[in-house]
Amino acid sequence: MLIRVRNLLIAAVPFAALLLGASLTADEGMYPISELGRLDLRAKGLQVSASDLYNPNGVSLVDAIVQVGGCTGAFVSPDGLILTNHHCAFGAVQAASTAQHDYLTDGFFAATREGELPARGYTVRITESYRDVSSTVLDGLADEMDPTERARAIEQRTKAIVAETEAAQPGKRAEVAEMFAGKTYVLFVYTYLRDIRLVYVPPRAIGEFGGENDNWMWPRHTGDFSFMRAYVGSDGKPAPHAPANVPYTPRRFLKVNPDGVKEGDAVFVLGYPGRTYRHRTSHYLAYERLVRMPFVADLNASQIETMETLGASSREIALKHDARIKGLANVMKNYRGKLRGIDRLDLVKRWQQDEAALQAFVDADPELKARYGEVLPGIGRVYQETVRQAPSELVLGALRASSLRLTNAYRLYEGAIERQKPDLQREAAYMDRNSAQLLESMRQALRDFHAPTDRALLGELLRRAAALPQDQRIPAVDAIVKGGDAGPAIDRFLDQALANAKVTDEASLQAALSKSPEALEQLGDPWIGFARALYPTFRALRETQQRREGTLSRLQALYVDAKQRRQSAAFLPDANGTLRLTLGRVRGYSPADAVVHLPFTTLHGVVDKTTGTEPFTSPARLVELAREGAYGRFAHPALGDVPVAMLYDLDTTGGNSGSPVMNARGELIGVNFDRTFDATINDYAWSESYSRSIGVDVRYVLWVTGTFGGATRVLQEMGITP
Amino acid sequence: MLIRVRNLLIAAVPFAALLLGASLTADEGMYPISELGRLDLRAKGLQVSASDLYNPNGVSLVDAIVQVGGCTGAFVSPDGLILTNHHCAFGAVQAASTAQHDYLTDGFFAATREGELPARGYTVRITESYRDVSSTVLDGLADEMDPTERARAIEQRTKAIVAETEAAQPGKRAEVAEMFAGKTYVLFVYTYLRDIRLVYVPPRAIGEFGGENDNWMWPRHTGDFSFMRAYVGSDGKPAPHAPANVPYTPRRFLKVNPDGVKEGDAVFVLGYPGRTYRHRTSHYLAYERLVRMPFVADLNASQIETMETLGASSREIALKHDARIKGLANVMKNYRGKLRGIDRLDLVKRWQQDEAALQAFVDADPELKARYGEVLPGIGRVYQETVRQAPSELVLGALRASSLRLTNAYRLYEGAIERQKPDLQREAAYMDRNSAQLLESMRQALRDFHAPTDRALLGELLRRAAALPQDQRIPAVDAIVKGGDAGPAIDRFLDQALANAKVTDEASLQAALSKSPEALEQLGDPWIGFARALYPTFRALRETQQRREGTLSRLQALYVDAKQRRQSAAFLPDANGTLRLTLGRVRGYSPADAVVHLPFTTLHGVVDKTTGTEPFTSPARLVELAREGAYGRFAHPALGDVPVAMLYDLDTTGGNSGSPVMNARGELIGVNFDRTFDATINDYAWSESYSRSIGVDVRYVLWVTGTFGGATRVLQEMGITP
Repeated sequence: MLIRVRNLLIAAVPFAALLLGASLTADEGMYPISELGRLDLRAKGLQVSASDLYNPNGVSLVDAIVQVGGCTGAFVSPDGLILTNHHCAFGAVQAASTAQHDYLTDGFFAATREGELPARGYTVRITESYRDVSSTVLDGLADEMDPTERARAIEQRTKAIVAETEAAQPGKRAEVAEMFAGKTYVLFVYTYLRDIRLVYVPPRAIGEFGGENDNWMWPRHTGDFSFMRAYVGSDGKPAPHAPANVPYTPRRFLKVNPDGVKEGDAVFVLGYPGRTYRHRTSHYLAYERLVRMPFVADLNASQIETMETLGASSREIALKHDARIKGLANVMKNYRGKLRGIDRLDLVKRWQQDEAALQAFVDADPELKARYGEVLPGIGRVYQETVRQAPSELVLGALRASSLRLTNAYRLYEGAIERQKPDLQREAAYMDRNSAQLLESMRQALRDFHAPTDRALLGELLRRAAALPQDQRIPAVDAIVKGGDAGPAIDRFLDQALANAKVTDEASLQAALSKSPEALEQLGDPWIGFARALYPTFRALRETQQRREGTLSRLQALYVDAKQRRQSAAFLPDANGTLRLTLGRVRGYSPADAVVHLPFTTLHGVVDKTTGTEPFTSPARLVELAREGAYGRFAHPALGDVPVAMLYDLDTTGGNSGSPVMNARGELIGVNFDRTFDATINDYAWSESYSRSIGVDVRYVLWVTGTFGGATRVLQEMGITP
Repeated sequence: MLIRVRNLLIAAVPFAALLLGASLTADEGMYPISELGRLDLRAKGLQVSASDLYNPNGVSLVDAIVQVGGCTGAFVSPDGLILTNHHCAFGAVQAASTAQHDYLTDGFFAATREGELPARGYTVRITESYRDVSSTVLDGLADEMDPTERARAIEQRTKAIVAETEAAQPGKRAEVAEMFAGKTYVLFVYTYLRDIRLVYVPPRAIGEFGGENDNWMWPRHTGDFSFMRAYVGSDGKPAPHAPANVPYTPRRFLKVNPDGVKEGDAVFVLGYPGRTYRHRTSHYLAYERLVRMPFVADLNASQIETMETLGASSREIALKHDARIKGLANVMKNYRGKLRGIDRLDLVKRWQQDEAALQAFVDADPELKARYGEVLPGIGRVYQETVRQAPSELVLGALRASSLRLTNAYRLYEGAIERQKPDLQREAAYMDRNSAQLLESMRQALRDFHAPTDRALLGELLRRAAALPQDQRIPAVDAIVKGGDAGPAIDRFLDQALANAKVTDEASLQAALSKSPEALEQLGDPWIGFARALYPTFRALRETQQRREGTLSRLQALYVDAKQRRQSAAFLPDANGTLRLTLGRVRGYSPADAVVHLPFTTLHGVVDKTTGTEPFTSPARLVELAREGAYGRFAHPALGDVPVAMLYDLDTTGGNSGSPVMNARGELIGVNFDRTFDATINDYAWSESYSRSIGVDVRYVLWVTGTFGGATRVLQEMGITP
């Protein structure tokens, strides 16, 4: 209690000062590495230059940034040591655990390099180069082309570029990223390292402290970090796991600064933000706000409730549901934050006003009007159709994903059809280069299968499907109901389907994967029968969506053009999983009237939150060390306590998990792992008031690793004396 | 959004400054008016003297303070205008509403004095005098007396003092308050005014904004205030409602200062805090923490759930449950706050340490040891017994209160027995002076009765009673279960009891009230039969409790003596519903790590919280006026917005609702209505870090009344030009 008051006394003053200063430099923007030259880094408070950040002809900070486990990570030693989030290493820790060793609960530390355990299924991706390929993708594709044809042509050309690049550079992997929809395409070439190992992982009670309750929330007290290491063959080349492999030597690693930062300091993040939608129009936003997100949030809530009820009596069943519930809850909370944010910022109306102004600007000039006059009305028509068809389209999407039996059956059936085509013409999921990933996810579906759950979730969606309006009915569902009473018919269907399933284990799955569509049908598996019955509907939906995407791709490109003509300013493209820089300051905010959130939480805050009930348990030793004040060199001088998590006004989104947070000199001082509830709005707009991201403070990373975890060899490797 | 950021910029600076200054003067204490002379008011920042506050030989601020509707209120005009809380006037507004006029929803304003509506059942209590009567109560009661005898003797003597005083001063009402348990007793003489009327009441959406969700919470946006007026007969004496009555002229009324206060300003409250327990021992606190409060909080949660389920389908049933659910929820949230507070402050351990130190001090001196050596062990033994008997005693207490049929049946049966005794020897509830109150609460139980609710709540408690350990069984419950399977036996009992109830309406109730115990039994009402079967158990429990109270009364008095011997300081008595002063400053606090709560909320905060879903709806006109910035003179200069609620570090508890909050000069600048969740701990200890109370800012009172409500005559009466 006294500590809290003391913190407050000290923290409130710089906070006020910071607020007065920060608004001068706070700024929206996830800058692609191609756009770094546009930034006045000095004015933003950084002491590094654009070429320190990215240098195609030499070594730069970017070379230390990797993608790992779907997240971002950073090399922090010359021996390939990687710092990322606990939740990014989670799957590897789970897979490494055995009946004897529960590394999730207890944490993991390899006392010697030989003891580092394989992170099964993990790869580390390093960006090798990028090149604009817009002209190759778009040349000769007339605006007037049939939209479906145009979309298909773009898809074919990008696939060809990828195939060509990968053929020319064996061992590399290529990807074409759409930067501006229908407008700019960039080819990225990546190296994948395939022998990744666990080095130090804190106990789950630290790495996941606060769990779902605190997810998307501030104040936060989660030590969401882990250390891994990349290995290569003794020839220095990427290789699968082998005992003889050697640590990878990165071109560049980040210096870890154990002194951290203070409120108001300039910080930046390099990482791989997933998706933003800031260049969409109000039609899209209204569809998301009014139709799609409420549907998904409500469906997820009901599916979570179903799974929690069914898992209440059995730890084994609960474990099968665990990852799915987490995923559903995460999306649900994210969407609820966005729904609130869109309303609080009145975003649909603001976008509508911007668009009305743009339309007026365009209409005032005959030349502009001829080129852009029909762009916004055209986009509007696409979303009118989308909204009209939403009832059946949303149910269809959820239908295939909700039953694990049906998910696998559909993948088998569709895959059998697709595999009859040449590789380049297939749906991407069924291309040979993605077959390992597909197989793994089908295996996961087998492992997580629990008949009553499948029955309940699919039953609910079939009942929704049976209640669709006449003009949106799904023939495969009508064939089950046969015009009678839907409930009993669906129950009968589910009973017999679950009783007669054939592809129920790994052996039958492997066998089924090589079969033709006809051979699959002959298995007599009712799930494959149902997948086959649904196939024409999904095909038609896919074609509708391709047509809409094709239309939108062309119109969105013109829309961005028109905006640029009006504002005579260059825009930053939406996030698309490619490397971006965002910069700003360590800074609190006001989430509500009369409430101020300060930008650092503390070790004593962890103790204070520790109730002993999941997810608020803490290792006894952590509480003891905190009570002893055993901070070592890791205390925040003004707070007089180890800082745990921090808040900054950077522009991040999903995919930025695990990104290194760097100080003005480009030294690592934190690991990004979340945004605040209010900052879920980042996907549509960065907000001065609400956009705050959350990182683990490097001092907590080092305190937990060294003082709590005793993993001093890891600190030494980074040049840190505890 | 921009407004929020602006507020923050301005508010953060004085907040920090205040925190640095405030701890110099913040202080614990609910000072009885007899103790005001002990305070250095100047040093505390007040500009009024002790005799300005209370002057037995003249007029003082205390003369403006009244008790009304179980709350505190203040005269604010020479014509008997009273300002109190909306929740204190609630019952009167509900009673005044008709099918045509829903004053709860729409609010109420009497455009002329003639239009002011009676507040049925309301009285206004004015403190006339007080006198220490400890010697009369205690003289000749030896420490060694049998505890039960001693408790009974104290009870009889206080009843006699009251009867004597009321006989000598007709029309007045006397009460003897125990200031220190078993030690000091003060006789208060009160005048009751009986014609109270409604003047201005805001709509429920303002007066109850935030409802149960925001109860005990900060930030708060509730306009929890109402204006009433006291009337007297044309002779100036208290009289029941009559059209010819005239407004009461108070000896003193408070000046309302429309400029309010700012962060850091000294403020004080005069009011009637209900109960605190700061002079109890760790034995009591441990019993509350580990046994009683968890039992009640859990029981209330389950009863609320039951009533919400049963009321879900019918508005009429929900209305019957409304007040009960509110009451249960209020206690539940309060207890949960206390449970958390006790743990966060480690209060049981701290009290234990204090007591160990006191014991050592006592044991070191033979004289002290002889007198006080056995005090703490003795108190400990009382609570050992209390804890041991808690399973049955807690169930018994809840049993009688949970079924409205049983509540009334027990009151009838016990009342019939008590009324055979002389008035002064009866249990207080059945004394003639309390008969009107008893009748009204029995009528209320008839009105709120709903058979399935009674069945469910009583059934649950009977099942708990049936599961009690062998040595704590309740014979009346055993007689129902008859050694068989408890569930079906209880169900059968409830079925037949509900089917055969006789006292089910006002007429049968009135008839039953004058019957003897034997005549009551002859009614054949199974509820009265059950009450009769329970009577011996409750009698025995009452005697046990009287014995314990008698023992504790003596020991607690010695305990406080011993503490005073050790600390050589005078203590303030625990709150006991008598007039108290508490003083401090307008001040925010930190409820959790990295969170700061500022001390003012704003009108724009109300708009921001308005979702359109109960309890977060706002009148359209309020939102409109806020958007127009129509603040008039009522804006907080630094916030640039109308302040709605405010936070201060005063020492308040239940009963302080409606208390005027005054500035250094004794002018009214707010109306107290709640504490923060963390400040529920006030009942045991005032905490520098957590004890914050909540008031409506006078500027919101005046803005709502004048600008929103158009009740300018009310403002004019207080001398305010809008």
